[in-house]
Amino acid sequence: MPVDYVVNEAIKHVRHVPSAVEVPLSDALGRYLAEDVVAGFDVPGFNRSAVDGYAVRSADTFGASPTNPIMLRVKGFLAVGDDPGKFVIGPGEAVEISTGAALPPGADAVVMYEDTRRVGDYVEVLRAVPPMGNVSRRGEDVRAGELMYRRGTKLMPWDLGVLASMGISRVRVYNLRIAIVSTGNELLEVESLGGSPPPTGKVINSSRFVIEGMVRTLGGEPHYLGIVGDDEERIAEVVGDALRSFDAVITTGGVSVGKVDYTIRAIMRLKPEFLVHGVSIRPGRPNSVAVVNGKPVFMLSGFPVAALTGFDVLVRPIVLKMVNGEEEPRSVIRGVLTRRVATPVNTRSFVRVRVFRGSDGRVYVEPLALTGSGVLSTLVRGNGILVVPENREGFDEGDEVEVFLIRSVF
Amino acid sequence: MPVDYVVNEAIKHVRHVPSAVEVPLSDALGRYLAEDVVAGFDVPGFNRSAVDGYAVRSADTFGASPTNPIMLRVKGFLAVGDDPGKFVIGPGEAVEISTGAALPPGADAVVMYEDTRRVGDYVEVLRAVPPMGNVSRRGEDVRAGELMYRRGTKLMPWDLGVLASMGISRVRVYNLRIAIVSTGNELLEVESLGGSPPPTGKVINSSRFVIEGMVRTLGGEPHYLGIVGDDEERIAEVVGDALRSFDAVITTGGVSVGKVDYTIRAIMRLKPEFLVHGVSIRPGRPNSVAVVNGKPVFMLSGFPVAALTGFDVLVRPIVLKMVNGEEEPRSVIRGVLTRRVATPVNTRSFVRVRVFRGSDGRVYVEPLALTGSGVLSTLVRGNGILVVPENREGFDEGDEVEVFLIRSVF
Repeated sequence: MPVDYVVNEAIKHVRHVPSAVEVPLSDALGRYLAEDVVAGFDVPGFNRSAVDGYAVRSADTFGASPTNPIMLRVKGFLAVGDDPGKFVIGPGEAVEISTGAALPPGADAVVMYEDTRRVGDYVEVLRAVPPMGNVSRRGEDVRAGELMYRRGTKLMPWDLGVLASMGISRVRVYNLRIAIVSTGNELLEVESLGGSPPPTGKVINSSRFVIEGMVRTLGGEPHYLGIVGDDEERIAEVVGDALRSFDAVITTGGVSVGKVDYTIRAIMRLKPEFLVHGVSIRPGRPNSVAVVNGKPVFMLSGFPVAALTGFDVLVRPIVLKMVNGEEEPRSVIRGVLTRRVATPVNTRSFVRVRVFRGSDGRVYVEPLALTGSGVLSTLVRGNGILVVPENREGFDEGDEVEVFLIRSVF
Repeated sequence: MPVDYVVNEAIKHVRHVPSAVEVPLSDALGRYLAEDVVAGFDVPGFNRSAVDGYAVRSADTFGASPTNPIMLRVKGFLAVGDDPGKFVIGPGEAVEISTGAALPPGADAVVMYEDTRRVGDYVEVLRAVPPMGNVSRRGEDVRAGELMYRRGTKLMPWDLGVLASMGISRVRVYNLRIAIVSTGNELLEVESLGGSPPPTGKVINSSRFVIEGMVRTLGGEPHYLGIVGDDEERIAEVVGDALRSFDAVITTGGVSVGKVDYTIRAIMRLKPEFLVHGVSIRPGRPNSVAVVNGKPVFMLSGFPVAALTGFDVLVRPIVLKMVNGEEEPRSVIRGVLTRRVATPVNTRSFVRVRVFRGSDGRVYVEPLALTGSGVLSTLVRGNGILVVPENREGFDEGDEVEVFLIRSVF
């Protein structure tokens, strides 16, 4: 099944909305807003000086020039944070003022130091300033009543600053809780081995950590529920329970293109309203998705690279939709392919590559292992992913291709 | 002072190395490795089947074809996780096997289901398979003794999987603790206002949250030490104390191009071995950096956008160097400038822009406010930053420019 079709169909069936939780701003980074945010007041709340200089009545400065300076009496100094009411500027008067300080009553402009000459208690203005010249106006940053954020915005560091400046110290964000269930008789927990290699036939459960990390990058909270053997009934029980407490469930393992397919059969028992077994991607063909009682269940391959690809093409877009979020921009680079890449038609292929700058200064893209969905280390040796779309059977040596960078160029 | 010069000189003076801490893999995402990691054993630790099919002695299959099938006796079935020792494959024998299962003794290849026909307890092989055909070899992913990670690697989700597969359940990462001190008589904490606007002349401390968030994106732990008034002695005391407990200190506010410059004077009291006051960037000219007892002190502007720019050009590269980290790839897009951007020469300018796709399908870049370093909301309305290098005075309307994307294209 083509990936885009599967994702769109699954989204139509997902009705569950994760609950919201109120958190202090310091805990809100990377999470998705569960509410629209409207400004309660103007920011800044007052006209303030944009420069260091003298607050004046602009009309007093008209006609000023170096050869025709206009003399004003300086009533004092206003620093940032001072109450501006302590000075009232009448005709012929000025107040020395710092950048960011509130404009005193009567003043409507600021003359920069560079355009003045101080003479005792007086200042000579050498250049006229228009009304509101060098003034940051009230409401310039945020206007009262303005819709500043829509539900589903992923909060970045600067958003926390904007929210704080709006007087908001706590925000409602989605409390996206995702259960992870690893399946497979071959799996052992890394903690149980004490650094020793697993016995022959057994495999350390590494996908769990990959999926936990990916859930975190989505602003979600991963809840790892442990390893379940290849037992259809038990998988159905654990996933069924998880669906009562969590917003989504991700399983790894137990799906294959072969004959033994415990997870799919287990999920069938839960009477999904939607289920697609397998998608046209490589690696990751066995990755599957179901919707049970309006919540998504992702059945990812037990092979870490295939699971990662499945997360990227299935979990991310569907979970983002649950929190009204948008795909984030990715780091992309163009480079010249060092050798041919052949991929199956009607399949979206994810080829791990090594992107490097050649001695000629050009960027080159070297494909790494084309097979081996278990070979996670290509993500360490490589630094990029070349996506070959469904309508192509690869790229030729020398083609200029676009690559998603997962680490810096070598 | 040119930014690159300041960064390079500061790095020469930073001698402090943050301490390391051992954390479980689940807590290691986004942190920087404090040690090289060498593989203790091969991964996988055994030859395993890469397909679903029949494990065989490859020599037995030579000459097999659909018209000349070779019949082998099937001794049983090996699932993933099974002990392969329960079957020994002799001449004329085979074992049915799942993808990922260990190859039984005697077998050296796997024939895919597609190339076989099952007949009771026998299987007809319809195509020859070479030695190690359809087998994932021991050590294919990771080889014992191989240097897999260098100190300073930022751990991504897949790295956690690779480490787990190597039998590693805890890693040593840098415990990067960064103190944040906000200075300024005008500042109020957002929590103290209960949602009300600050009184005239006062400003909510929003930079604190921006800096906290940015420290987290660097894999660091921000420690906010509160607001200090514009008091040279008190700032020196608080920063001096912080330098004893933290790896770096970031102050905001109190640096300006005007006459009152408390923070710089305060840091001078701490006898820095290096200090640069102001850098050639816009916004953010007052951003400054010092090194005291081998630790960096960053004095950022009190204006949030200027502070953010200062973080990007000063804090990030210098702190990354402390943990041996590398700059991460950024999301970049090219687009056509909708109007002229004029910037001062010998200054690296950071212009906030709105990147959108026009009705003609082309990508356009619209510059937002060129002034107003306090206007954080341009980072909400905009989605990109156009960097104008020191050797240019801007770009013309219609120029194709490269922009860092901070959110998706509109």
